[in-house]
Amino acid sequence: MNAEIIAVGSEMLGPTRIDTNSLFLTDQLTTLGVEVVAKAVIGDDLALLTETIRTAVHRSDVVILSGGLGPTEDDLTREAVAAALGVGQTYRAEIFEGIAALFAKMGRKISDNNKRQANVIDGAEVLANERGTAPGQWIRTPRGGVVMLVPGPPREMTHMWTNQCQPRLAAMVPPLAIRTVWFRVSGMSESELDQLIAPAYKPYTNPTTTVLAKAGDIEIHLRARCTTAEQAQALVDEVGEKILALLGERIYSRNGDPLETVVGGLLKERSETVAVAESCTSGLLGAKLTDTPGSSAWFRGGYLVYANDLKRDLIGELNGPAVSEETAVSLARAAAERAGADWAISTTGVAGPDGGTEASPVGTVWIGVARQGGAAEARRFRFPGDRTRVRMFATQAALDMLRRRLSPGAKVAESTWLSNA
Amino acid sequence: MNAEIIAVGSEMLGPTRIDTNSLFLTDQLTTLGVEVVAKAVIGDDLALLTETIRTAVHRSDVVILSGGLGPTEDDLTREAVAAALGVGQTYRAEIFEGIAALFAKMGRKISDNNKRQANVIDGAEVLANERGTAPGQWIRTPRGGVVMLVPGPPREMTHMWTNQCQPRLAAMVPPLAIRTVWFRVSGMSESELDQLIAPAYKPYTNPTTTVLAKAGDIEIHLRARCTTAEQAQALVDEVGEKILALLGERIYSRNGDPLETVVGGLLKERSETVAVAESCTSGLLGAKLTDTPGSSAWFRGGYLVYANDLKRDLIGELNGPAVSEETAVSLARAAAERAGADWAISTTGVAGPDGGTEASPVGTVWIGVARQGGAAEARRFRFPGDRTRVRMFATQAALDMLRRRLSPGAKVAESTWLSNA
Repeated sequence: MNAEIIAVGSEMLGPTRIDTNSLFLTDQLTTLGVEVVAKAVIGDDLALLTETIRTAVHRSDVVILSGGLGPTEDDLTREAVAAALGVGQTYRAEIFEGIAALFAKMGRKISDNNKRQANVIDGAEVLANERGTAPGQWIRTPRGGVVMLVPGPPREMTHMWTNQCQPRLAAMVPPLAIRTVWFRVSGMSESELDQLIAPAYKPYTNPTTTVLAKAGDIEIHLRARCTTAEQAQALVDEVGEKILALLGERIYSRNGDPLETVVGGLLKERSETVAVAESCTSGLLGAKLTDTPGSSAWFRGGYLVYANDLKRDLIGELNGPAVSEETAVSLARAAAERAGADWAISTTGVAGPDGGTEASPVGTVWIGVARQGGAAEARRFRFPGDRTRVRMFATQAALDMLRRRLSPGAKVAESTWLSNA
Repeated sequence: MNAEIIAVGSEMLGPTRIDTNSLFLTDQLTTLGVEVVAKAVIGDDLALLTETIRTAVHRSDVVILSGGLGPTEDDLTREAVAAALGVGQTYRAEIFEGIAALFAKMGRKISDNNKRQANVIDGAEVLANERGTAPGQWIRTPRGGVVMLVPGPPREMTHMWTNQCQPRLAAMVPPLAIRTVWFRVSGMSESELDQLIAPAYKPYTNPTTTVLAKAGDIEIHLRARCTTAEQAQALVDEVGEKILALLGERIYSRNGDPLETVVGGLLKERSETVAVAESCTSGLLGAKLTDTPGSSAWFRGGYLVYANDLKRDLIGELNGPAVSEETAVSLARAAAERAGADWAISTTGVAGPDGGTEASPVGTVWIGVARQGGAAEARRFRFPGDRTRVRMFATQAALDMLRRRLSPGAKVAESTWLSNA
């Protein structure tokens, strides 16, 4: 079963307005097994709105309109739905009296405009609004679908949805079990990942697979819908196993946890701690590691060594250029030692836009990982994009290098952005 | 002239995804005098997408499609636009070679999938993508309108819009003089600010006034549209002066620069430098100060003193509780001294959700500012919201405290969140 959500009102088309109603409704519909295939925001224009509703009703089973139910002439949702369905409207005096009583209770005088709110589309059930004046409407279509009119203000809409729309719709849809799998992956580009896993998920329309990418971080969502929970679970397991086999330890999380939480969990399990020494990321790594509540159990602190003499202050003399393997290794070793941490991660690189050299062009970052009194290593990366992206990539790659060190025995493929040049 | 904006991709229909591209584009279109009459988000469904585009092209002059230009089979925007316009597509080898060269430069291997990105709709101009692989397209319609295909990732889309789409569209629309004023304000809550300035801007419909708030940071946009530039300038000046008189030095920027850039500019002017000592913000302050290219001229580095013994390591013995005036002052003094900076800022507080005490409940943050060899001070703040918001508020407040120290003679109202309790 498919759905479309239409928000009505020119004010919703401003450069700062977000249609949050559709986010709530999408979540609710998905839980019922109803798939949202399109959303729209339409200004106060009768012809445009009517056309949009007609198209939606023709191709989708559920059409939800939020807003445009007020008393002014700009409030056109009722007219547009009636026109799109080719039916009329009937004025119901008892609805107007109900609204008038509400106004009286608030010590306000009702205006004649409010009569518009008492117009009911022929064939509609009226949905009482317990948090405002505009009643909603519920109309079954000849094709067996449904059109719902709900108020725009979120607190009125959510209350009406929960108490009136959701139960009616739940009775219409076949009960459906949903099972999901959520992988998070680091160290790959989106196109590289998709090329690798597309053969595994493309043959399936159920579960649906969605791939979402940010700098240095990719999410894969699988969602299966079946008549039984067992069938749905079997389907996500089937496709999930295939993806798992292809990506292996590149998958750092199977429950949606971000990389910093996974790293924190590994450290906590081992009762170990981490410190940082940051040059090009200059705080991003420390900020990420402390996003998670409770991070004081495993994060100690660190050193922002942006200026080169602060690098020297931490490690003694520089044994190589500021952006080099030697410096990254020395920074990580010194940070672990100085902060009294079991582990330390370091970054030193060229985030740009200036400062690139032939040996270290913009995007080059050395990332070091050291265990206090143990092995230390550094790797050279070359990240794409502008200053902001290079710094984000470097932060994710640094967290991922530590994760790999903390997951012994993992056979891990190399990162896309490792660079030996 | 009317416009519609269509975001493409099933992932954009999830219960947590917001189509931010359409907000940027709406702002840009409005500036050109083009009115957005409808927006849509459409999943990866060729028939539905084609129908939506056909309808939009038929009724609106400007149709902008963002997303669906990637290399995978889910990326259907090119096919749908070609189908809606009733034209074909032509593969252009030189585009594929360009993408391949980009991949090679990054040391990555291109896949055959990327060939899809080299298909050009017949009659289209290709818009180079300087921040990604997917080229955009610009197609004039027989009705005299235009259809634009731009990439989905905001950083690619905004760059392509600004450099390629905006100038082309500006040449199509009748000139309208627009003048804007953009204030940025710190140290106030949104409701407090709006209560103060609403009487100044509410009487005017031109210029329009928009107030946008993030944690600890508010933007005020005035925008006047007139037939002449002089008229528009006079209008924004008139309302701008009134707001300026009410807010005074709380306005830290009049050109949109963020607080860290303003602070960097003040330091640069004075040929001075800054360092940080961060406990509860643990890197956010250092990361913000280095967001701006060229920050190495005035940012030296700093110390993430998350664990208390790292605070001791920096300042010797703690003279008070970890979250206290004494500690904040000592941290700032020591950071300036140790890092060889003219100034230092420090944070120590309780970001939550745990760790609150009666003396320092969750949200309490002491912020210190010191001049090397000079005066040092600390102030106590109490910020609202969750861990993330408290850390963001503290970062902004710390930058603002330094700004106030660097702007001598400014009579500055107190911050909303200062707390003497």
